[in-house]
Amino acid sequence: MNEPPRSCPFASRRSLLAGTAALAAAITTRGAARAESAPSPEVASAPLVVPFRGPHQSGIITPAQSHTYFAAFDVAAANRDGLVELLRVWTDAAERLTLGKTAAVLDQDLAAPGADSGEALGLGASRLTLTFGFGPGIFAKDGVDRFGVAGQRPAALVDLPRFNGDQLIPAKSGGDLSLQACADDPQIAFHAVRQLARLAYGAAQIRWVQAGFLPRTPPGETPRNLMGFKDGTNNPPIDDAAAMANTIWIGEEGPAWVRGGSYVVVRRIRIALEHWDRTEVDFQEQTMGRHKYTGAPLGGAHEFDPLDLDAKDGDGNPIIAENAHVRLGSAAMNDGARILRRGYAYDDGVNFTAERWPPWRQGMEYDAGLLFIAYQRDPRTGFIRLFESMSKLDALNQFASHTGSAIFVCPPGVRAGEFIGQSLLVT
Amino acid sequence: MNEPPRSCPFASRRSLLAGTAALAAAITTRGAARAESAPSPEVASAPLVVPFRGPHQSGIITPAQSHTYFAAFDVAAANRDGLVELLRVWTDAAERLTLGKTAAVLDQDLAAPGADSGEALGLGASRLTLTFGFGPGIFAKDGVDRFGVAGQRPAALVDLPRFNGDQLIPAKSGGDLSLQACADDPQIAFHAVRQLARLAYGAAQIRWVQAGFLPRTPPGETPRNLMGFKDGTNNPPIDDAAAMANTIWIGEEGPAWVRGGSYVVVRRIRIALEHWDRTEVDFQEQTMGRHKYTGAPLGGAHEFDPLDLDAKDGDGNPIIAENAHVRLGSAAMNDGARILRRGYAYDDGVNFTAERWPPWRQGMEYDAGLLFIAYQRDPRTGFIRLFESMSKLDALNQFASHTGSAIFVCPPGVRAGEFIGQSLLVT
Repeated sequence: MNEPPRSCPFASRRSLLAGTAALAAAITTRGAARAESAPSPEVASAPLVVPFRGPHQSGIITPAQSHTYFAAFDVAAANRDGLVELLRVWTDAAERLTLGKTAAVLDQDLAAPGADSGEALGLGASRLTLTFGFGPGIFAKDGVDRFGVAGQRPAALVDLPRFNGDQLIPAKSGGDLSLQACADDPQIAFHAVRQLARLAYGAAQIRWVQAGFLPRTPPGETPRNLMGFKDGTNNPPIDDAAAMANTIWIGEEGPAWVRGGSYVVVRRIRIALEHWDRTEVDFQEQTMGRHKYTGAPLGGAHEFDPLDLDAKDGDGNPIIAENAHVRLGSAAMNDGARILRRGYAYDDGVNFTAERWPPWRQGMEYDAGLLFIAYQRDPRTGFIRLFESMSKLDALNQFASHTGSAIFVCPPGVRAGEFIGQSLLVT
Repeated sequence: MNEPPRSCPFASRRSLLAGTAALAAAITTRGAARAESAPSPEVASAPLVVPFRGPHQSGIITPAQSHTYFAAFDVAAANRDGLVELLRVWTDAAERLTLGKTAAVLDQDLAAPGADSGEALGLGASRLTLTFGFGPGIFAKDGVDRFGVAGQRPAALVDLPRFNGDQLIPAKSGGDLSLQACADDPQIAFHAVRQLARLAYGAAQIRWVQAGFLPRTPPGETPRNLMGFKDGTNNPPIDDAAAMANTIWIGEEGPAWVRGGSYVVVRRIRIALEHWDRTEVDFQEQTMGRHKYTGAPLGGAHEFDPLDLDAKDGDGNPIIAENAHVRLGSAAMNDGARILRRGYAYDDGVNFTAERWPPWRQGMEYDAGLLFIAYQRDPRTGFIRLFESMSKLDALNQFASHTGSAIFVCPPGVRAGEFIGQSLLVT
């Protein structure tokens, strides 16, 4: 399944035999005009399928695709059977989608809604991954244990505390289930969420969604975020299985059903880009603790030089300031806390805003910034540990407003014949 | 300039010599983990620069890039000199950006805001085009001829009428200036608009923006829209200079300053995707007048078969219904009207909505659909002619709400030494 389908898998009732001919005609007639606008054949023949099944869910340590569509759902199903049925259906559809197929086989009967909305026909898999998580509401909601799993809630799945400066919008926060779709084509990621949302009619409904993107950075380079800084330099190495086991995958400390899974924290962080753009580059560098253009830590020369948090300048002041972003976020300052950031830039256009700081600046501004997505073995010693101090002290807070927030536990990978979350729900 | 820069063009004060070494280190350390996530070298070496200068503006008949960021600005400059200065600065920056450069040369002095926000460093040009337009407000606003050009307003630059069913949001409509950024990387399109918006501080401010995307459809195939149908099949051929001269480029009928330009109409069309997804495929096909999977017109076998508007079924009813989208939008039904659609899918997440039809359906729904962008030689005989009847009769209206609208005249291309709109403003 490394080759995406090059023609529609299905021809309509009145032109059942026309698919291939139509495709040929399309190429013949339109090829010259369109060739420049389409991806090259080399791209189409690259390995495009990320395996859906395995010991861990894909989309966690999978190298980041260029687009995400992250969705949170509220569950309407009243009992465990309803939730199990939803997850079974989702598992089957998700596996098909990650292979570049339609969510279900398209019916020859056109007098019914399509089993797939069709906008991804012919696009291939494009490295689509679909990663599922369970929010606190699965284990208890309004004091009710709807699915009989309250006793299985991992201790590490805490409700996130209110952090200093939080400006959370309820309609962009929380959720019972999470679905992170990532692909190298935005329409494929959107399509996948849309199909699973359709299959959930009556059992779960979308609470919020957020699209995100990464630049198409050349191989081997760290992508830059919308602040113009390289972002992800200090991530733990995804190709180091021991590091991943230590920092990302839930181990023996969790209940059996969740081992091999991970916790994801999502934060929608609006950045005051207009304000940022008006600040001096060296001020930006002091704020971040890194050089803007090379990505090197202040006092270092190369992007991957270690942070020297003890280095002082001639006046005896730290070269990386006490309130610099990289210092406050470093493992050294946080009892060794590590998280795997897998975030995306987001851009939701412009709207009227009054900035947190300075409070007198207001007007039409970008609602853009960072869709922060981070995986970790334990959020108490991961994101929460890191962000407790950062939310109070980080110099970057002058430019950042956290407007959305959610936490989910991602169960382990789906093995052959199983459905997502089976180890929790079938006992 | 076909090769994008592969490293930062500028090294910071404290590590001026470190750029190349840092790049090498990055590749060495991270290459294995990141290779899968980045575009292949074949993509990077493809022709990536679309010439900015020429007889026509680029971005009109340029084969569509995968992403757009469309912005409308309101002009704050009080007189012609202020507007000219803005357009001079924009022209210089736009030309640099389309070459894959920063908006201006980055200053070695870091104690000042950067001349470029930096998020596109190292990404190359990625076929960036920047297309400018003048809205009605340039020629008169609130009865005032701010720039002394009221007498130069082309007769064809009419204010769009209110169409049947319009649900326009003022904050997503209108504008004095338009800037259409298109590229094969969303961050490059966003970056370009952001730089020009920065350069406009005090002279113009963003009124609205809208991001859009296209799927990465294989070469020679027509991309599908979010309704799952191929979209653009019947566009006039962009490689046919005579057809473009007839239908897209303003000719002798316009004032001299605008010849070689074009008119653009932008409509933000929200599609009730959840409603659409619940309808039968054959109902969708009757609505559109085309087969969903092949793209062939009803009664035809191949995507590019001509529409047979006279064909009848056994009962004597038209095979392509009287209210089918393709019939109402056809040149044959509209005195030969043709427009060049260059639209994108848009997706702004979900929000609460009450549908136009059926009026009782309401809840969290996608704010997604089509960012309709169409170029034409004369909007009176182009979009307005087409949409007058479509807005009343098109079966597709059950699913579509026009929430944003704007019209602009795009001046001709920029010749060497000139700035955009010079033929209007320097007389």
